[in-house]
Amino acid sequence: MTTVISEFEIIRRYFTRPAPSAILGVGDDCALVKARQGMVLAVSTDMLVEGTHFLAGTDPERLGHKTLAVNLSDLAAMGADARWVLLSAALPTVDEAWVDAFARGFHALAERSGVELIGGDTTRGPLCLSVTVLGELPAGLELRRSGAGLGDDIWLSGATGEAALALACLQGHARLSDALLNDCKLRLEAPEPRLELGGRLRGIASSAIDVSDGLVADLGHVAEVSSLRADLLLDALPRAAALRACGDAALAQRCLLAGGDDYELVFTAPVAARSDLEALAIELNLPLTRIGSMQAGAPGVVVRAADGSEVKLSHRGFDHFQP
Amino acid sequence: MTTVISEFEIIRRYFTRPAPSAILGVGDDCALVKARQGMVLAVSTDMLVEGTHFLAGTDPERLGHKTLAVNLSDLAAMGADARWVLLSAALPTVDEAWVDAFARGFHALAERSGVELIGGDTTRGPLCLSVTVLGELPAGLELRRSGAGLGDDIWLSGATGEAALALACLQGHARLSDALLNDCKLRLEAPEPRLELGGRLRGIASSAIDVSDGLVADLGHVAEVSSLRADLLLDALPRAAALRACGDAALAQRCLLAGGDDYELVFTAPVAARSDLEALAIELNLPLTRIGSMQAGAPGVVVRAADGSEVKLSHRGFDHFQP
Repeated sequence: MTTVISEFEIIRRYFTRPAPSAILGVGDDCALVKARQGMVLAVSTDMLVEGTHFLAGTDPERLGHKTLAVNLSDLAAMGADARWVLLSAALPTVDEAWVDAFARGFHALAERSGVELIGGDTTRGPLCLSVTVLGELPAGLELRRSGAGLGDDIWLSGATGEAALALACLQGHARLSDALLNDCKLRLEAPEPRLELGGRLRGIASSAIDVSDGLVADLGHVAEVSSLRADLLLDALPRAAALRACGDAALAQRCLLAGGDDYELVFTAPVAARSDLEALAIELNLPLTRIGSMQAGAPGVVVRAADGSEVKLSHRGFDHFQP
Repeated sequence: MTTVISEFEIIRRYFTRPAPSAILGVGDDCALVKARQGMVLAVSTDMLVEGTHFLAGTDPERLGHKTLAVNLSDLAAMGADARWVLLSAALPTVDEAWVDAFARGFHALAERSGVELIGGDTTRGPLCLSVTVLGELPAGLELRRSGAGLGDDIWLSGATGEAALALACLQGHARLSDALLNDCKLRLEAPEPRLELGGRLRGIASSAIDVSDGLVADLGHVAEVSSLRADLLLDALPRAAALRACGDAALAQRCLLAGGDDYELVFTAPVAARSDLEALAIELNLPLTRIGSMQAGAPGVVVRAADGSEVKLSHRGFDHFQP
């Protein structure tokens, strides 16, 4: 049953939490914050729309998690420590059980990530969620997309493709065993932002980006602004069990290279950093894989087969306004 | 005709502008900013949904202005100087002429307000606009809602009611001459955030809030958190020509007290500040009117007639989830 409560009551009950590290949190016209000495603020915003970014009927607790996760992923890609978050939500109706579950997923990740909710807005409308995150990092140590150097290795955390494969299954384009589908759905619906990795890459990586639109598309942004060619080695890419099991090699490759919604970090680092990164992977218990290198050439991504030949791609990534 | 261009092209063409006061603006995973020495950051976010906050078919240039204006109004109410803004937009289609006009309205106000666009997100979905603004103010000088003191005057900038009256006319509930309707539509569709006033109220006002949900409702928040009763003098309230001319006294009073969408500042100040505020009104060429005072009593707003008797209200303000 849907209980109608007021906008102010929703904010009071579900979206007001202590924010001890802010000067002023939820409840006034603005929140007030201050970065610590020597730190600059990293700010990013992302909007999630039902039907575009998630399917109608998505589990609300996972959606609460994901809404925050995709934003924290941007902080991770910049090498920033997460500090504060603002959440705006347009809701078609006020189903308290839904809001309660959504808030639970959101706050659980917020708490675990050390990020405090300091503001937001709640209104009626087609389901749309907009988050702004603020993080901190020492001045000059940010991981810009433009910092990749000639000869740098390209690294990937975790593996790509499972989220897109889950979506393909949910849309009836592929089939997986229940166990593998559940793994993939978890990646789609509750991605884990690589905040700890991002922070540890400061001073090691030369550039970073998070994989939201697809590996080739996002690495393409790095190549473009770094004015280098990214050579991606297809055989070096880590493949999750579900991609190997799905029985459709073309789909699996598309998910791997252009699926999106992965929220892994793809980053570049000098060859000299290899042993540090291998040690970091063990310390964080998170696979870090060398998947290619930055070369002189027309800015863009070239995917190469084992024999060095170029693999032609039908899909390069996700664009909300393209078919 | 609708031209389909990519999400990245929209951002590049319409939403990438120089941001000289940011360390890093649009185009990376995060923007990077730093508050000046001795300043804290004020952050606020507001979401506008078609059909809830504005009518379908609203002039896109005015909508671009308003989307930013309602957010800047929150900075004004805190006494902050506007610095940076992030804009997220869900668009049902990419009508380039629409986006171009929207961006024109947005950027014109941004430029005039000294605020720089440093980030955002563009996606497909039912028309929904979400803005986060960042401002600066000297530590400790923010205008909190909770600062109203016993015996303080209550002041209002400009006048309330015209925006709500415009909406009533557009919905067929009232009629005005074309000239008056145009005045009111301008207030509804292109409100002017009181940024300069807000900044000048630092050190003078004891509390402030902007009128977005209705004068009584918003003043009620101040009364509540200041633990005082706000006595509002009905006859002291400034009335725009359109409210006097609309021929429906009950509607006019509802627009005045509970209309919302005004984006004026209602603030409190000690009696000793009267001459300073009168001088400020002249300097800024913006009417500032004393409309009541803060008294001991149950926290809330009491509207009083000329004889001191209490005026009972049928509507106290706007709530997106109440009928």
